[in-house]
Amino acid sequence: MSEFTAVLEQVMTPTLLLDERRARRNIAAMADKARRSGVRFRPHFKTHQSAAIGAWFRSEGVTAITVSSLDMAGYFADHGWGDILVAFPANVRELTKINALANRVRLHLLVDSPAAVAALDARLTAPVGVWLEVDAGYTRSGVAWNSPADLYATAEAVIAAPQMALQGLLTHAGNTYGATSHPEIVRLYAETLTRLERARNWLMEYGFLGLELSIGDTPACSVMDGFTGVDEVRPGNFVFFDAMQQQISACTWDEIALTVACPVVGIYPARREVVVYGGAVHLSKESLRLADGSLSFGAVGRFTAAGWTAPLPGVKVRSLSQEHGIVQADADAFSAHLAGLHVGDLLAIYPVHSCLTADLLKRYRTLDGDVIDMAPIPR
Amino acid sequence: MSEFTAVLEQVMTPTLLLDERRARRNIAAMADKARRSGVRFRPHFKTHQSAAIGAWFRSEGVTAITVSSLDMAGYFADHGWGDILVAFPANVRELTKINALANRVRLHLLVDSPAAVAALDARLTAPVGVWLEVDAGYTRSGVAWNSPADLYATAEAVIAAPQMALQGLLTHAGNTYGATSHPEIVRLYAETLTRLERARNWLMEYGFLGLELSIGDTPACSVMDGFTGVDEVRPGNFVFFDAMQQQISACTWDEIALTVACPVVGIYPARREVVVYGGAVHLSKESLRLADGSLSFGAVGRFTAAGWTAPLPGVKVRSLSQEHGIVQADADAFSAHLAGLHVGDLLAIYPVHSCLTADLLKRYRTLDGDVIDMAPIPR
Repeated sequence: MSEFTAVLEQVMTPTLLLDERRARRNIAAMADKARRSGVRFRPHFKTHQSAAIGAWFRSEGVTAITVSSLDMAGYFADHGWGDILVAFPANVRELTKINALANRVRLHLLVDSPAAVAALDARLTAPVGVWLEVDAGYTRSGVAWNSPADLYATAEAVIAAPQMALQGLLTHAGNTYGATSHPEIVRLYAETLTRLERARNWLMEYGFLGLELSIGDTPACSVMDGFTGVDEVRPGNFVFFDAMQQQISACTWDEIALTVACPVVGIYPARREVVVYGGAVHLSKESLRLADGSLSFGAVGRFTAAGWTAPLPGVKVRSLSQEHGIVQADADAFSAHLAGLHVGDLLAIYPVHSCLTADLLKRYRTLDGDVIDMAPIPR
Repeated sequence: MSEFTAVLEQVMTPTLLLDERRARRNIAAMADKARRSGVRFRPHFKTHQSAAIGAWFRSEGVTAITVSSLDMAGYFADHGWGDILVAFPANVRELTKINALANRVRLHLLVDSPAAVAALDARLTAPVGVWLEVDAGYTRSGVAWNSPADLYATAEAVIAAPQMALQGLLTHAGNTYGATSHPEIVRLYAETLTRLERARNWLMEYGFLGLELSIGDTPACSVMDGFTGVDEVRPGNFVFFDAMQQQISACTWDEIALTVACPVVGIYPARREVVVYGGAVHLSKESLRLADGSLSFGAVGRFTAAGWTAPLPGVKVRSLSQEHGIVQADADAFSAHLAGLHVGDLLAIYPVHSCLTADLLKRYRTLDGDVIDMAPIPR
């Protein structure tokens, strides 16, 4: 019996399996690309939320990180990280946490309005680095890239705030997640960069000099060969990748570093379906639309003695309840791929969105059987 | 300052607020309806997952409960519940837990194939009640209601298993969640019941007598005036209700017992949008389709000194990232309802699916400021 077979034998409930070799390879490749491009690599740790996995980045020379909440920043500060960007609009209700963090690490915050700057400035007691968050077309958060007046007013407010040091312009071009091809991601990257540069040029005309540019999305960071023109990249998802990244051409199936081992609890040949223990509370309700127009809540592989197979063609998770996952096979795919299954067997579900799945399952088990815990962040 | 205003002042991050009065009223109404119908009320505790809220059911005379996992069964057994149904296809990988539970409570399991019965029977060391799960049209799990041969074979296997006592036929008619009106729910309820009775009649012809019928979905249990013909009802979501139940006519807005208090972190009048701290890791990615064809990830209210308002017309959560929620207003709705907002204010987000939101946030804060913890179930 292989070591991994012994790991699988211990699985009782939906279990997040991590292929450490693939994750380390993903980290090394991105670190190398950033190094070759001469940009700062500030990976987003919201995907893995784990000090142990953070250490894999440290061995690739990473010293600055990104997180999505102040509690996550506190966790990584506790684990020796000293340069932390919270890539979320500064939440003025957490100023106590902000001040505590700013007193012990180099803390970076995002702002996108003079009002936000004023609310922070009124109570900040320690210095922070501040980035102007720019909306370069994704329309989530940030100053509109094509609104020089708003850019100027926000930058001006930062400059006037004694505890704030203006770092530059930052965006998350999440619109690449809607791309369907490699060329479309390249086009969106170029558009994003052009808009950030335009915004920076306006600010230069107002006299704001030395502003850096920071970008972040995994699709562009994975697809581009280099990052000419930017100073910092902040991808996160690439450490694991997932079915969504594969669909938009940001990774291949064999770069995906995690799957969820789900026990089979029902087999329905007449419906060409199998029910697994693995639902919305394990995988999340994130879905993607397949080429045939149907929704998929996950791709489905089988386990081997050393890991998992590529997804079974014609098989998908068609729906999720709180604890149930319904695996459905096309006409011939059931007999080809699922007919030999028994109740109690395991299927490998590739998550649609690994960040959300990891956040739900809170603990990794490596193929060697090691347990890696995530940050115990209270909600 | 009202007590509730003081509670709101303490909110720093997305916080699950519970109106205890509404939840207790929802519990009392359903318990009363079950009593009047002369059926056993075995509420599903997967929605709240809390011993403290379980006690509110106990004071309405409830003694038997439903859960969706063995770990949840263990938690409620630890809190004094002695009659527990795990409404999920029995997971043969958890036989150690099953045996431990069967030794200390009256444990009920679901089976839907002779193979599942055999796998259980081989290792069961204590008596369990067993229900045949029937698929009455929802096509999730269960023996197909119109397959007498499968019903017979499964029932026969249960009867032959020394530790199993056959209780009856059970279904979850989750297809009511796809209903769009009160009459459609009534029709689906009647169809489900007819199919269950048909399945029971076939089994009676084979000599299986005294089988009970158990049904469960909140939409039907909320809409029907009574439960003639069934022996047991297992609704769960009704304790809180949510935006999805409101949409399918199972509840009114003022019966919804929880919202999430989300800090405002960005205001974008030009887009008629506001960004709140409250994303997929707080609310879940569950969505519903509105009458205009758009998706909503939550309805949006304002807070008052005593609770929250009805949803603001023309305002919805249009999308969620991991931590961001994007609140969007129709043409006139922004100036009417959101124009006075400031960064740091709170909005009340009605979840689309309260079970998933509660599962993510793990802790309730009542309008009086009490903290109610959920089961610390490992994933």
